[in-house]
Amino acid sequence: MFQIAAYETFQDGQVIFEEGSSGDWVYEIDAGTIELSRNVGGQRVVVEVLQTGEVFGEMAFVAKIPRTATARAVGETTVGIMDRDYLDKELNKLTGSFRTLLKILVMRLKKATDNIVDAKVSP
Amino acid sequence: MFQIAAYETFQDGQVIFEEGSSGDWVYEIDAGTIELSRNVGGQRVVVEVLQTGEVFGEMAFVAKIPRTATARAVGETTVGIMDRDYLDKELNKLTGSFRTLLKILVMRLKKATDNIVDAKVSP
Repeated sequence: MFQIAAYETFQDGQVIFEEGSSGDWVYEIDAGTIELSRNVGGQRVVVEVLQTGEVFGEMAFVAKIPRTATARAVGETTVGIMDRDYLDKELNKLTGSFRTLLKILVMRLKKATDNIVDAKVSP
Repeated sequence: MFQIAAYETFQDGQVIFEEGSSGDWVYEIDAGTIELSRNVGGQRVVVEVLQTGEVFGEMAFVAKIPRTATARAVGETTVGIMDRDYLDKELNKLTGSFRTLLKILVMRLKKATDNIVDAKVSP
């Protein structure tokens, strides 16, 4: 459904992007599994496990913030990188206050994820 | 910062919108406090408490889904209803697949909230 610019295949355990890093590409899983995790004091806390057809990386893109989690391949996994010209054009159509609305959504999701991770670490 | 079409004042405990209902207006708190809650088997589970300047109602608007929580005034609270023509025009600028990306964000936030509510109900 999404315009894909390129495909890339990762082996089991390989990292697509690291929590805290500054990229903002958006990905769709073409075939395989992606684990999203946070690092909490050296402990890897899994936030979500995504399958073929699911999307990841959209939070950093929409809100222009560092990666909120590490994305890692579980088994051999091929991901499609969404066409960047298309995504940028769409985002640039929006005025500042609508983009703020979208950033609010992302920050709310980030905060909810923080809560879930905290609950997992300190039961 | 947002274009506000009208202001409305609610008394303590009054409901602005009900979980599961079909409205999709977006609100900014002009003065006061809003509690967002879910109803779980008759028990009111507070999801978030928002203050002056914060925004609510954006999930239903962006994803065109029923309200995911009940919004209730805590003390006398005035809310601004965001200008609907403006919001619709912005959303309509976007092509289908970008809107899908935004819907994915909202559904992820909904799922995260589900998890938090579940954890609060069954400790």
